[in-house]
Amino acid sequence: MLNNTLFFKKSTLYTISSYANRINDEVKSGDIGYYHLIDTSLGLINESLSFILNKDHIKNIVLVGMGGSSCGVKALHGMLFNEKSNQRKLFILDNTSTHSFNTVLQEITLKESLFLIISKTGNTIEVISLFKLFIDHFKLSMQELKKYFVFITDKDSKLHQEGQDLGIKCFFIPANVGGRFSILSAVGVVPLCFCGYNVKALLEGAKACFEDFFIHKKDEILQKAYHYCTHKNANMNILFSYSDAFKGFNEWYIQLIAESLGKKQGYKRIGLTPIALIGARDQHSFLQLIMDGPKNKTVTFLKIKDSQKAPIIPDIHFKFLDSFSNKINLHELLNAQCDATMHALIAENLSVDLIELEKLDAWHAGYLMYYYELFTSTCAMMLGINAYDQPGVEVGKLILKNILNS
Amino acid sequence: MLNNTLFFKKSTLYTISSYANRINDEVKSGDIGYYHLIDTSLGLINESLSFILNKDHIKNIVLVGMGGSSCGVKALHGMLFNEKSNQRKLFILDNTSTHSFNTVLQEITLKESLFLIISKTGNTIEVISLFKLFIDHFKLSMQELKKYFVFITDKDSKLHQEGQDLGIKCFFIPANVGGRFSILSAVGVVPLCFCGYNVKALLEGAKACFEDFFIHKKDEILQKAYHYCTHKNANMNILFSYSDAFKGFNEWYIQLIAESLGKKQGYKRIGLTPIALIGARDQHSFLQLIMDGPKNKTVTFLKIKDSQKAPIIPDIHFKFLDSFSNKINLHELLNAQCDATMHALIAENLSVDLIELEKLDAWHAGYLMYYYELFTSTCAMMLGINAYDQPGVEVGKLILKNILNS
Repeated sequence: MLNNTLFFKKSTLYTISSYANRINDEVKSGDIGYYHLIDTSLGLINESLSFILNKDHIKNIVLVGMGGSSCGVKALHGMLFNEKSNQRKLFILDNTSTHSFNTVLQEITLKESLFLIISKTGNTIEVISLFKLFIDHFKLSMQELKKYFVFITDKDSKLHQEGQDLGIKCFFIPANVGGRFSILSAVGVVPLCFCGYNVKALLEGAKACFEDFFIHKKDEILQKAYHYCTHKNANMNILFSYSDAFKGFNEWYIQLIAESLGKKQGYKRIGLTPIALIGARDQHSFLQLIMDGPKNKTVTFLKIKDSQKAPIIPDIHFKFLDSFSNKINLHELLNAQCDATMHALIAENLSVDLIELEKLDAWHAGYLMYYYELFTSTCAMMLGINAYDQPGVEVGKLILKNILNS
Repeated sequence: MLNNTLFFKKSTLYTISSYANRINDEVKSGDIGYYHLIDTSLGLINESLSFILNKDHIKNIVLVGMGGSSCGVKALHGMLFNEKSNQRKLFILDNTSTHSFNTVLQEITLKESLFLIISKTGNTIEVISLFKLFIDHFKLSMQELKKYFVFITDKDSKLHQEGQDLGIKCFFIPANVGGRFSILSAVGVVPLCFCGYNVKALLEGAKACFEDFFIHKKDEILQKAYHYCTHKNANMNILFSYSDAFKGFNEWYIQLIAESLGKKQGYKRIGLTPIALIGARDQHSFLQLIMDGPKNKTVTFLKIKDSQKAPIIPDIHFKFLDSFSNKINLHELLNAQCDATMHALIAENLSVDLIELEKLDAWHAGYLMYYYELFTSTCAMMLGINAYDQPGVEVGKLILKNILNS
């Protein structure tokens, strides 16, 4: 179960129901692919598992992808640390940063590794550059590449065409699924299956979220989106996630919101700014600004209810040091810190909501990610913008080509 | 050398010189301790090295500290990966997150470890709780603690008193040095010396920054602070750091700015919101929002000039894939991406500046961190707030005590 409690005033159902209908129309149109992955991706699980079957020599999965091609897997890899059914290690390269490239090279051997090259178009300069660097580093011939590389890309993309030419196995991303909405497509399913994660439960969790929204008509997503999109002052949305396991999820959230909801609309500039924090850590960092700075932020708290595996803080009494956390479960302390901070912010009259996961497993992670995808689509509809394109980043790519050519 | 190029209009020296004088007065007053650490901490290097001398059995340094007690060391540990003179591993625990606690336990043994318990006051609930958990996990008696633990704290704090009682070695933080300005105090010097980093060069770099500001009267910090503090629309300040090595530095930057500059002032709420990104990675994430979203952000680009150790992207020509990054050094590609993005944002008329480090070593890291400390003090002076307190986080602590007591 995922519970979402809103601590701000709800709108009347009348106000938001028209948006619910329009999202429904978007689903039915078939134009936007991610809505349908919860069903269509089931087949991909078998395809992935068949591919990796009898390849026990592969100990390392090296994922090379930028933005939406890596963020989602990184998020799930962080959240599901307790849930791997095999011993394979996952390495993610999501930057042209030499330090990270060298670090991965130090930790892998060629014959134990499988490299996943992920790019929807096949044009991503970072991914193609890293692909070539691996070929060079391991001194591979073109004929050998099919032994070590797998491509994940759109059908008929440059990467697919190259893959066909070289005999490299390709998994396909539906053309109408954008990068940042692609976690339940081959972009996520293939690497997660290779690493032994329970992708079926992930899809089931996402499906439960879909059904809560479209069939059971739960309205928290609509209410929250409407509140965010009509709030006069708060144009920054903080996700305060209580556990280090959410670090990757925080990055995914930022990419999803920032790239989907920052758009020009004629002469207007529209956009909500996502900020993601880790609790309790960032109570010692960003919290002061939320409490005393301008009231231009909404705050979502994210916590995990289940605390069975956490150690109990022992009942040690020092002469001078405090004892008031003694005999408390470490995770319950973390959750108490979450509650305390939340109530302090509510007392300051900030717009706050709370997402509680019953526990942190594939089902709940799937629900959570789908929740935010639906939330993003809903916000875009309310803001009157296209959630699924990213025209603003093209200028920089053109300038880059000019710099590299000169 | 650190170069800072401002791509926005400078103010007249007349406008900002009064602030320069007031910062000068603050230094001379002696009230604010961090200005003086560049000289007073030199002695601490010897004290730290003497302590660790002949303790070759210590392979792991486990640092337990929240906010300013860990952020700075994490930043430097990330930046100076090439500069360690010994093989000791550093583990940082900066959260009450069970997952991280368990991960550290899996990777260390007691007899090879030294634990640094860092808290200015000795009241930090997270730190005291983790301290007790380690004692319990390793089943240590009170008499054994001095063998494995070191305290870093204020003189006469509860932690110091406890340390005296138990015979535990204490290193001291000057009372007038706040947590987030403490990297050049024992908070940073002790763990960095233990791990074999060049702390002398770090202090020298910081001193060079001090001299550039106060003696050579370089005015970039003043100009940038004045621009940020008087900008009508841009209340968010993005640091776009081009290299994965800056991940920890980004967190430190956020803590420094958010906690120093988010303050109530009578009925008013003041605050600049720091956002930190990693390039080129976040060109595929947050960049769209900067380019097309509301123009409420300034952007600082941070890059490293030196690229000697990066590999060259090989001259491989595929039938279908692009070749325009062929024969380019990987780090030069990263820097070209930085330049391209910067020029795209300048063309959108955003306020942009560029910080270029000649290379990434202890000297430059010291300069860079001191640059941002001076910058923060200057902004606070211009905004008319106290950079050095954090009154807003006390409410949450009180609520927490109530929750734990009930």
